[in-house]
Amino acid sequence: MKIAVLPGDGIGPEIIAQAVNVLNALDEKFEMETAPVGGAGYEAAGHPLPDATLKLAQEADAVLFGAVGDWKYDTLERALRPEQAILGLRKNLKLFANLRPAILYPELAGASTLKPEVVSGLDILIIRELTGDIYFGQPRGVRTCPDGPFQGEREGFDTMRYAETEIRRIAHVAFQTAQKRGGRLTSVDKANVLETFQFWKDIVTDVHREYPDVALEHMYVDNAAMQLVRAPKKFDVIVTGNMFGDILSDAAAMLTGSIGMLPSASLDANNKGLYEPSHGSAPDIAGKGIANPLATILSAAMMLRYSLNKPEQADRIEAAVKKVLASGLRTPDIYEPGTTKVGTAEMGQAVVAAL
Amino acid sequence: MKIAVLPGDGIGPEIIAQAVNVLNALDEKFEMETAPVGGAGYEAAGHPLPDATLKLAQEADAVLFGAVGDWKYDTLERALRPEQAILGLRKNLKLFANLRPAILYPELAGASTLKPEVVSGLDILIIRELTGDIYFGQPRGVRTCPDGPFQGEREGFDTMRYAETEIRRIAHVAFQTAQKRGGRLTSVDKANVLETFQFWKDIVTDVHREYPDVALEHMYVDNAAMQLVRAPKKFDVIVTGNMFGDILSDAAAMLTGSIGMLPSASLDANNKGLYEPSHGSAPDIAGKGIANPLATILSAAMMLRYSLNKPEQADRIEAAVKKVLASGLRTPDIYEPGTTKVGTAEMGQAVVAAL
Ligand SMILES: CC(C)[C@H](C(=O)O)[C@@H](O)C(=O)O
Ligand SMILES: CC(C)[C@H](C(=O)O)[C@@H](O)C(=O)O
Repeated sequence: MKIAVLPGDGIGPEIIAQAVNVLNALDEKFEMETAPVGGAGYEAAGHPLPDATLKLAQEADAVLFGAVGDWKYDTLERALRPEQAILGLRKNLKLFANLRPAILYPELAGASTLKPEVVSGLDILIIRELTGDIYFGQPRGVRTCPDGPFQGEREGFDTMRYAETEIRRIAHVAFQTAQKRGGRLTSVDKANVLETFQFWKDIVTDVHREYPDVALEHMYVDNAAMQLVRAPKKFDVIVTGNMFGDILSDAAAMLTGSIGMLPSASLDANNKGLYEPSHGSAPDIAGKGIANPLATILSAAMMLRYSLNKPEQADRIEAAVKKVLASGLRTPDIYEPGTTKVGTAEMGQAVVAAL
Repeated sequence: MKIAVLPGDGIGPEIIAQAVNVLNALDEKFEMETAPVGGAGYEAAGHPLPDATLKLAQEADAVLFGAVGDWKYDTLERALRPEQAILGLRKNLKLFANLRPAILYPELAGASTLKPEVVSGLDILIIRELTGDIYFGQPRGVRTCPDGPFQGEREGFDTMRYAETEIRRIAHVAFQTAQKRGGRLTSVDKANVLETFQFWKDIVTDVHREYPDVALEHMYVDNAAMQLVRAPKKFDVIVTGNMFGDILSDAAAMLTGSIGMLPSASLDANNKGLYEPSHGSAPDIAGKGIANPLATILSAAMMLRYSLNKPEQADRIEAAVKKVLASGLRTPDIYEPGTTKVGTAEMGQAVVAAL
């Protein structure tokens, strides 16, 4: 089995190196091939998602992704900016199902800005549709306003769209995932305002008939944002569209205070996937050897479970991470007095040792 | 000067009654006329925004609004549901600037789910554009998908749009408001993905040239959702579009834990406005006499300041509310051991007495 390894920019290469070490320390051996992406892709081949990189990702059984982005690319035209790589990979690989757990490890309860009783034991999973919605909907652009009170002046516009198949397939993923967890699913929409999300709500309600054992609740996105702050532990699985999911999954991740711990998976219809930490490329700390590699290591574990069908190996990695946390090692982002501060490489080595 | 009083549904009538009592207790006298809206409008005249109600709101100098919505209207077709009244009022009265303060009163610091050091002294203002964006953009609907991989099946769609004038005018409101506060403005966009918000960012940047004394920062909406949880006190004024503002303003309000305290103003180009509490109609506690009237009373204060040009009267109401809080009176939503629990009417009377 082959893994495409795309380190990217900022802290990407450092954290990916540790995840690769962990994979190499397993009994099973995997073929891994590395390619540049994001700003590194632009430097190497003039495009954030070079053809060779896309081809490698398409041929591989799974993609392990670091992070992309750096301020130095801010002045490039949008099509050449690093984040286009991630949008291009999602679209080309048809990675429509983004799974983002927001888990608070007991040892890290103090890292949250929320009161311990509100977040201790938090374990929610956000399932974000990733290839549709206003992210990719055509038409879009800047044009002369064709009608209404501002006719004739310039306007920016985008199209939000969801076709029935797109909603059905993400709903199936969500219901099946909820079945394997607490059996509760919250579908987040804005059906009181948007046609797209009234349609979304209708289709999710229809798919629900195939999953009578799952308790389905519908919630408006503004209320969901409030409930995540008020009582996040009331959620089990949340499913929503691409745009709302972008906002809510980041808010949910930040509830834990330890976003350096959170992995993510983006899956296609055949469980091929791209795995990346939930945090970004953090160019401000790149090269300093202080980034937390655990989100990337846990992303590798998700990869073993979902795409490479090696659940025992995934379990081993996750157990090793728990052991390392219990032993008191902390990178600076999750450091608290009384624990032992270590760097990126030491943290990675500790996980390898704990395997 | 004439005030249109629209109590609405759920707890709306109860909380509005207290705000009206407070207004009547001022030295200045105002003409007030009441009309049904939301579910009450539907019951009275078959439409959530009856013609007579809209006419009254148009003729008045300001609108004092309670809340709309009740589960019993959930099965009505969308055009007849209570929330259409609020969308109709915004559009017809051209209330493009929604001001939503998120303030944490020192006495209520314990009500927040966030740690005291993260939120104590919180005082941010969200300015949400309220008559444009995907809320009103045409075309929209459910149709046969015209192109792409799902061509021929059903799809829901909406259009996000912002014309230059719409962005400029809300940007001016935001910069001018920031000048009167801490001098810092965060414009929230999704310019890395949406054409509409790249255009938004460009126009806001251009308007900034007229306000060199304001420090402007641009932030992606997903990051803004994270920063509100991580370090909300770093914000002063936030300006954003209608959809993002809906989500972020509710999240920001919930940071305080005391959404029953938060007023809002929705203004047109001439400072005519609609004033309403940030919370909803809470049908579950309607008629029980336990709803918190302070958000509505503080909305009346905002009305005096922004639309009726009576800043001294606004100051008096706000001082009276602070006095009542300091005296330890609390409605159940903000009750903590050691304080005195009171109902809606007692709280309103206490504010009148403190005037
Ligand atoms: C970089 C950006 C295009 C991307 C998104 O908006 O999807 C990011 O925020 C994410 O959530 O992965
Ligand atoms: C009721 C609904 C249409 C409304 C909105 O989405 O604007 C509400 O959530 C608000 O924020 O006032």
